[in-house]
Amino acid sequence: MLRSFAGSDVLITGGAGFIGSTLAAKLVAANAKVTIVDSLIPEYGGNLENLADIRNRVNLSIADVRDRHSMKYLVQGQDFLFNLAGQTSHMDSMTDPFTDLEINAKAQLSILEACHQYNPGVKIVFAGTRQIYGRPDYLPVDEKHPARPVDVNGIHKLAGEWYHLLYNSVYGIRSCVLRLTNTYGPRMRIRDARQTFVGIWIRLILEGKPFEVWGGEQLRDFTYVDDCVAALLLAASMDAADGRVYNLGGDRVVNLRELAEALVNAHGRGEFVLKEFPEERKKIDIGDYYSNDARIREELGWKPATSLDEGLARTLKYFAPRLERYL
Amino acid sequence: MLRSFAGSDVLITGGAGFIGSTLAAKLVAANAKVTIVDSLIPEYGGNLENLADIRNRVNLSIADVRDRHSMKYLVQGQDFLFNLAGQTSHMDSMTDPFTDLEINAKAQLSILEACHQYNPGVKIVFAGTRQIYGRPDYLPVDEKHPARPVDVNGIHKLAGEWYHLLYNSVYGIRSCVLRLTNTYGPRMRIRDARQTFVGIWIRLILEGKPFEVWGGEQLRDFTYVDDCVAALLLAASMDAADGRVYNLGGDRVVNLRELAEALVNAHGRGEFVLKEFPEERKKIDIGDYYSNDARIREELGWKPATSLDEGLARTLKYFAPRLERYL
Repeated sequence: MLRSFAGSDVLITGGAGFIGSTLAAKLVAANAKVTIVDSLIPEYGGNLENLADIRNRVNLSIADVRDRHSMKYLVQGQDFLFNLAGQTSHMDSMTDPFTDLEINAKAQLSILEACHQYNPGVKIVFAGTRQIYGRPDYLPVDEKHPARPVDVNGIHKLAGEWYHLLYNSVYGIRSCVLRLTNTYGPRMRIRDARQTFVGIWIRLILEGKPFEVWGGEQLRDFTYVDDCVAALLLAASMDAADGRVYNLGGDRVVNLRELAEALVNAHGRGEFVLKEFPEERKKIDIGDYYSNDARIREELGWKPATSLDEGLARTLKYFAPRLERYL
Repeated sequence: MLRSFAGSDVLITGGAGFIGSTLAAKLVAANAKVTIVDSLIPEYGGNLENLADIRNRVNLSIADVRDRHSMKYLVQGQDFLFNLAGQTSHMDSMTDPFTDLEINAKAQLSILEACHQYNPGVKIVFAGTRQIYGRPDYLPVDEKHPARPVDVNGIHKLAGEWYHLLYNSVYGIRSCVLRLTNTYGPRMRIRDARQTFVGIWIRLILEGKPFEVWGGEQLRDFTYVDDCVAALLLAASMDAADGRVYNLGGDRVVNLRELAEALVNAHGRGEFVLKEFPEERKKIDIGDYYSNDARIREELGWKPATSLDEGLARTLKYFAPRLERYL
């Protein structure tokens, strides 16, 4: 499957981020010509450390997807566009909804308009989120579950999905959407909990400090980043994905206390404190969530290959010698 | 029910438009203190002729909902906000998606932010559209039907709905959404087909010219404007509506040829030509559509009171002596 990328031109928005940089490394190894766009906004996921091993083998544009002029130029001549840039903080989307709108909705529209005008032959994979389902009506959640955003971020991420599907159906710009669940692994943001609480857990356990587990009973599933990248590549390379939306899932469902225990086990030591779920987050909390990812398994032949225990061990192994570069 | 508006302060965005001006007249008659915001953009629905009878009894601001500063001021002190301003052209949303985004998404967010900061006690009714359902999976379409926008307008109108529901659930700003189907009646835009094809039919039949019916077999339902206004007022006055989404429907389902015949009958003369559905519209066409409006009938006690034949007759009677003022 990786052979289909050899020699091809690939653009990755958010390419210095956690998932984007992991994808870039995989594509570089497959001899693709990779261009990365990243704004390196400190609060977001971009970090040049993520590109340390491939810095001289990619074309890096420090640019913002909100910049229509940059994007108009950058999309030209690309065979594939992995559209991963986004504002991911749910709390930020509530305190500053307009920035969320600009990044997650308007910039997506301008990227698609640029493709429509300058590169209609490109194939696009858009990173959506399971957050758009809101509080689930049923579990596991499949792609037919109603969308019910519980924060401004969810509203705009859903608009972003629809733009992609619309430009696919109306203009024939081949696009598909992966709805990611909690993704974890090497290169994730661990400085704080802005991307996911798992990040700060990893930082604290490596610093030898106890980490906080809020609630503890909530069920979640987790995708190891290499499995997420495999799904992105499959979706890009297969025509069957055009116009489709796919959930990603994990290898198993755990509650947050079990996840904390698995992390302590993977590290061989460490401790955590169970805390009550904070009041200000309750209003936008979604309760238990885990995915039904049967569709992508059936249609694209994807499945998670990395167990949670192994994924956590690899994540700790990556960060242990590089901790200070991620703080 | 109208008594609950006597003496109250009411803001209507898009208040010089078809539905907004009809609502304003009703509220003025009920002794509400009505402020109208309308940008009077020539391509949209606003027309000062619509306010001829109440011009001296309303406070009129010629302002654009995209102007955050105007809106910040205008929402203050209002008891009710009927949020009807919008870009409604599906074709325009495809050729100029950014304007559609600014009006139908960003401006809605800024209105809600203004209410959140300056008037959290206001009650808001938002005019949504059945267009967000896309091509129906089943008929009649109820509120549980999946949203599946077929154009940029649908994506943004849906974002507009969700902002309202989110600000209701997270911040307690009482809001609800009515998903309007084809609304017709006095004061509609008849200059062209920008609001609805029914407008241009009415113009042409009154000018003694044949009008074109595209397709002819498509099923639709039509709400007479007074019934639509009654629904808006019910939703505003009843707490049961807070956080809810309601379809509006019509008194009966007709295909477009039957509608054309009903219009000719109502006028007593006139002719139409059946034409094939234009190719460029097929891609964003939704096929048959009619609403299941059982929810608003049960929860708010609404039902359409005006038959299609009577509504068409009243519409023609309104426009006949004023035709030139609407061209």
